[in-house]
Amino acid sequence: MICENIEIGQNGHLLFAGQDTVELAKQYGTPLYLLDENYIRKMCNIYKDAFYKYFGDRAYPVYASKANAFRRIYEIMKEENLGIDVVSQGEIYTAVKAGFDMKNAYFNSNNKTDEDISFAMDNKVGYFVVDNIEEVYAIEEEAKKRGMKQKILLRLTPGIDPHTYEEVATGKVDSKFGTAIETGQAEEITKITLGKEHIILSGFHCHVGSQVFAEDVFERAAVVMLEFIALIKDKYGYTTEILDLGGGYGVRYVDTDPYLSIDKKVSEVATAIKDTCKRLNIDVPEIHMEPGRSIVAASGMTLYTVGTVKRITGYKNYVSIDGGMADNPRYILYGSKYTCLLANKMNENSNFECSLVGRCCESGDIIQENIKLPESVERGDIVAVCTTGAYNYSMASNYNRLTRPPIVMLNKGKSYVAVKRETLEDLIQNDM
Amino acid sequence: MICENIEIGQNGHLLFAGQDTVELAKQYGTPLYLLDENYIRKMCNIYKDAFYKYFGDRAYPVYASKANAFRRIYEIMKEENLGIDVVSQGEIYTAVKAGFDMKNAYFNSNNKTDEDISFAMDNKVGYFVVDNIEEVYAIEEEAKKRGMKQKILLRLTPGIDPHTYEEVATGKVDSKFGTAIETGQAEEITKITLGKEHIILSGFHCHVGSQVFAEDVFERAAVVMLEFIALIKDKYGYTTEILDLGGGYGVRYVDTDPYLSIDKKVSEVATAIKDTCKRLNIDVPEIHMEPGRSIVAASGMTLYTVGTVKRITGYKNYVSIDGGMADNPRYILYGSKYTCLLANKMNENSNFECSLVGRCCESGDIIQENIKLPESVERGDIVAVCTTGAYNYSMASNYNRLTRPPIVMLNKGKSYVAVKRETLEDLIQNDM
Repeated sequence: MICENIEIGQNGHLLFAGQDTVELAKQYGTPLYLLDENYIRKMCNIYKDAFYKYFGDRAYPVYASKANAFRRIYEIMKEENLGIDVVSQGEIYTAVKAGFDMKNAYFNSNNKTDEDISFAMDNKVGYFVVDNIEEVYAIEEEAKKRGMKQKILLRLTPGIDPHTYEEVATGKVDSKFGTAIETGQAEEITKITLGKEHIILSGFHCHVGSQVFAEDVFERAAVVMLEFIALIKDKYGYTTEILDLGGGYGVRYVDTDPYLSIDKKVSEVATAIKDTCKRLNIDVPEIHMEPGRSIVAASGMTLYTVGTVKRITGYKNYVSIDGGMADNPRYILYGSKYTCLLANKMNENSNFECSLVGRCCESGDIIQENIKLPESVERGDIVAVCTTGAYNYSMASNYNRLTRPPIVMLNKGKSYVAVKRETLEDLIQNDM
Repeated sequence: MICENIEIGQNGHLLFAGQDTVELAKQYGTPLYLLDENYIRKMCNIYKDAFYKYFGDRAYPVYASKANAFRRIYEIMKEENLGIDVVSQGEIYTAVKAGFDMKNAYFNSNNKTDEDISFAMDNKVGYFVVDNIEEVYAIEEEAKKRGMKQKILLRLTPGIDPHTYEEVATGKVDSKFGTAIETGQAEEITKITLGKEHIILSGFHCHVGSQVFAEDVFERAAVVMLEFIALIKDKYGYTTEILDLGGGYGVRYVDTDPYLSIDKKVSEVATAIKDTCKRLNIDVPEIHMEPGRSIVAASGMTLYTVGTVKRITGYKNYVSIDGGMADNPRYILYGSKYTCLLANKMNENSNFECSLVGRCCESGDIIQENIKLPESVERGDIVAVCTTGAYNYSMASNYNRLTRPPIVMLNKGKSYVAVKRETLEDLIQNDM
């Protein structure tokens, strides 16, 4: 199985987090997002343990909540003592409503409006991750008005190509994010920031990309960042307190994806950081990373009901389900791979090659091309798409005016609704 | 200008539907969807006039409401006497709430669930556009239970390649949509349908694709469909009442896109239909088409506020705005072209080459690459993205937990809110 929380039950049904998915589909309806709460907590602990072991007790992981943001998940992050990365008023608002202590929140985004800045200060967000010079000015102005000092990290682009797909590569010099080290602009923004009365520069941030499997991407980024930190210390006498290396570790979607050991990866980054600090004769800063996908992706599964099976003689076969790009746009956006299973027929051989397609009126509305399901697949069967815990609910739309599925959490043999299914009334609530 | 409803005011501001966009941005905030109500009505009338002129008074256009679906637009379609194409319970529900007479509604979708079928019958949807054999059985069963007869069209795939982009090509044999003529499966489904007691077969439907500019796509599709209709008449004695040729006429997004005259295109299709019917010795059926994009796209414009301008020495320039792929995912989905203007500086030369990028934490969140704006572009400026009336609001998400913009309608020098801006409270209303 693609993930350890997936098995086959004695009745031939797919089990997720130990629970019968066919029964869950019956109980809650489809399409249905499932999330394995224990798996989320386990991943939080794997990161925390690795951080304490290799970076010491000041270091901590920060959950990149854009991967999957709703009230309950911020409660879990609070209980697990992770920091959170938030990127909008919406994420800040949701975290606040979950009772999250916002002093451990990091406000990212390449474009914070004046209203965003004011809202984040109202809600006592601990750190702004400042992307650009306009934000430095806007934060200084707002903090001055309030008679306070705002802690920030400066987001820099270290010029590292993470060998990931273009849409989620963010650490290159040619990027909408951050300020480039290579061009001298990072030094310039640092110098200006250090001169601001109402800003406390706590350190630096970078993010190289998403779904990264390549060997030494984080190590290379860390070295570039530390060399910059040493230069700034040398030229301006500024000692960096925090270095945040962003997120991006890859997740297994299909059997051919490699396994990543988070413990091993963090250990390798730690070695690179310690060696580099020694070479540069600087103290090791407090290290943060921002895992999002790797915490929640494999904790998720989506269940659908089959509506039609088309066998087009001489061409291809299509299996249509009752969801699609509205609840999971990742195939049409990136051609993302997924493991798809027929949940109620797990003991049958899967030798029927088909495309699993959504119900939206759009040819590109595909969940996955060329998968294999049992030959007997028919209307009413339950399809499970694995590893959908990240960037599914958070990217969902009402395209074709479909209501968004609920999120049901699974924990210790029980299930509970964390986000209710949208209703038809919800769809028109803002229509005048 | 890319569309006749766009001009420059004496103050150097961009005017849309005769109104000052900079003032509208101030009044309603950004991001902001604008819709020109008169333009929508004008396009409805262009279609109606062409239909009456070339097909006679039984023919009518059907608005493909997935292009932009909200309560107010169904009211407009009702006032303009268009039919509507609906694809989900959500669209049906919204149309009903607008008081639309559902006997002129056509329920499309490649996957209608039993619940969808029951809901559509509850709401007296006039016609089901039946995609597949499973639906024939499900509709027969539900109609029988209700002791009624349901009118349907059968959706067929005529095997026409419309030379459009892959995501929206739907009329090919190898398609998730409809039933293929070429394979004999269309004849098979027709035969089965004709034997159903509780189904009235009113005719046939096809849809070749979207954003179609190619010369004779609709003519070729019509010929294939009419030949099938003649064959069915011949073999089964069945006379087709309605032929629905779907939607798909292309819209101008940038100056290099051609102009399409709807009158001329409809006239060409009508000639092909009349000639073919004569050759095949069959009556001309009642003709429908389903324009969506071509009715609403150019009636729309989106306004944004600039947050940061990055000049990365030796690389590229980036202008970030306060929206992005959450309110307009068409660039990241299809690489769609758009005309982008700096609304408050229309009298300045545009020679600053840049990428217009969104505020989402994702590199692919781009509105348009390599556009030209005035060199003086800076934080606080208003950007207008033209021709966003179709597949923007309807595809919008809350990605990054951003709230969706409002729709403001412009009409005769006045403006009014048709869909309110989402609030932060809206975002968590279903969170338990």
